[in-house]
Amino acid sequence: MVELPFEQIRWADGKTGIVILDQTRLPEVLVEKTLVDVDHIEEAIVSLRVRGAPLIGITAAMGLAALVNGLDASDVDLVRKRAVEWAGRLAVARPTAVNLAWAIGRMRRIIDAAWPVASDLAAALIEEADRIHEEDRAMCRSIGEHGVTLFEEGSTVLTHCNAGALATGGIGTALAPVYVAHERGLKPRVFADETRPLLQGSRITAWELQQAGIDVTVLTDGMAGALMALDRPDLVLTGADRIAANGDVANKIGTYGLAVQAHHHAIPFYVLAPTSTVDLSTPTGERIPIEFRSADEVRRGFGRLTAPETVPVWSPAFDVTPAALISGIITERGIHRPPYDASLRGAIG
Amino acid sequence: MVELPFEQIRWADGKTGIVILDQTRLPEVLVEKTLVDVDHIEEAIVSLRVRGAPLIGITAAMGLAALVNGLDASDVDLVRKRAVEWAGRLAVARPTAVNLAWAIGRMRRIIDAAWPVASDLAAALIEEADRIHEEDRAMCRSIGEHGVTLFEEGSTVLTHCNAGALATGGIGTALAPVYVAHERGLKPRVFADETRPLLQGSRITAWELQQAGIDVTVLTDGMAGALMALDRPDLVLTGADRIAANGDVANKIGTYGLAVQAHHHAIPFYVLAPTSTVDLSTPTGERIPIEFRSADEVRRGFGRLTAPETVPVWSPAFDVTPAALISGIITERGIHRPPYDASLRGAIG
Repeated sequence: MVELPFEQIRWADGKTGIVILDQTRLPEVLVEKTLVDVDHIEEAIVSLRVRGAPLIGITAAMGLAALVNGLDASDVDLVRKRAVEWAGRLAVARPTAVNLAWAIGRMRRIIDAAWPVASDLAAALIEEADRIHEEDRAMCRSIGEHGVTLFEEGSTVLTHCNAGALATGGIGTALAPVYVAHERGLKPRVFADETRPLLQGSRITAWELQQAGIDVTVLTDGMAGALMALDRPDLVLTGADRIAANGDVANKIGTYGLAVQAHHHAIPFYVLAPTSTVDLSTPTGERIPIEFRSADEVRRGFGRLTAPETVPVWSPAFDVTPAALISGIITERGIHRPPYDASLRGAIG
Repeated sequence: MVELPFEQIRWADGKTGIVILDQTRLPEVLVEKTLVDVDHIEEAIVSLRVRGAPLIGITAAMGLAALVNGLDASDVDLVRKRAVEWAGRLAVARPTAVNLAWAIGRMRRIIDAAWPVASDLAAALIEEADRIHEEDRAMCRSIGEHGVTLFEEGSTVLTHCNAGALATGGIGTALAPVYVAHERGLKPRVFADETRPLLQGSRITAWELQQAGIDVTVLTDGMAGALMALDRPDLVLTGADRIAANGDVANKIGTYGLAVQAHHHAIPFYVLAPTSTVDLSTPTGERIPIEFRSADEVRRGFGRLTAPETVPVWSPAFDVTPAALISGIITERGIHRPPYDASLRGAIG
């Protein structure tokens, strides 16, 4: 098994709090934060101290369980009331992460069962949060096992943003096959787009791979085309925010341009994500709404003014890559090939 | 004529110095610097306070003339000796800007003529520097006139880096048709890639267009593909660092990826540059050497650490766009179309 030299999240002693790795401080310093009240857990999710849809879900579930476990257990009705109130707050801490609502939904079903004794409720919530975490680890591992079949010794991968261990509770999604290839001695080599505006690639992907002893090189987003022309990577691997029924993929802004360039160079382009990311109720990518972000993320992204103070900025948070540019979609169930309508529906439906 | 609300460079009072617009301070503040000795003129070129091949050439020529004009004119041999020494220093202030050596070469031919009276030499150098500046203005204007024939009312342009007024002594190269279209009331609209790592697009292109009252919007380099898919620009216009005889173009890193994406979307992609950029002795782009830049421009580009301190960075300064992806090359002589070998050689040779 891949041993990561960091923990994304764990229980605090006594399981009345959680300890997170504060991702906003990377790559400058590795800071862990112990969170023991709902305000701080909510703030950690809102401020992206923890990020990545799977990891946000795990954080909310473990956080809720720890909070309930820390309550005075003498009045079960009061405990349950608090649990419902906190679940409601955490479920809406970020609006778009589908895993957050899903993880809190699982916790709510535990809360809503009959619990004569408050400590039994707390124990059941801790168990459910552990289960969510464990399932996520297994999902990552499975994506990694499927994905590694694309690797040979010394395979070179170009990736975008962070769909790594720090976005999940395990070894990541897009980076899972890289960790598995590393474990098998295949010496994979990764090129990480820095991923403007928020630099998840250079700040987080580069950091976690370096920590794990994997060969990683950073480039700016605009250098990807030249890399394909001069030092041809074997594979392009990215994560996904949402996958439509026809295989169109919404992911971090820049993914589409990368797919177009990979297509031009005939470099295989794969999307790696859990089946929970596939939304069969969205028929095509055109139906996925595009969120636009604040101009200052681009104008002042580094604390310094890097564009005129009042200049308009066009800043979509993600883009849509049409299925025709995608060589395969890798989930925990296997490698899905076009036509995606049938292969995704078959795996999930 | 386009009236720019700023001056890239001008003579200081008495023409014994030059006044430059310090581009390293943009967009935060507009700071002019008066330079009256060779150390400061050299430093301004080395530190990119002035940048863009044409503007560097003009700066060196005007700076040299002003320095000579400031000397005690009683000993013509001493004046000439100093002039030769300074010309030598300024010619190598930056190694790759071909215009720098070319402009200093013109000044050297003046110095090397017979000058019994030192003040006549100084006057002749000032005249030659003015001529270089004026020719550059005319070259920009001419590129603008040819380029504007591609514009209709409200045309939308995507551009990369800065090939604008602040790279030249006039209205720029890639941006020249934008200024002319604006002057003609065509209301052009510009999208400017921020252009990592050094952000010439968001810092300089956005600033100069905003100053001129032209509609400009900034985006990160990775957003260009999504822009083409969602809000299709009519044209992509960029400058060039060197144009090979077959029409392959070396330009700021990111240009090639943009050309690939424009090709995929069938958006016309034009390169705009003076004929002095065409190098008929370089047969194809493969023969253009690629300069790699310091890792810290990417890791610490904004004063803050945005990647692990020791992570390797792959950072070419420019890339090569093959002629096959270029719809036309616009010089002061007109719009050249494929096959470029014939059309460029015909215009220049």
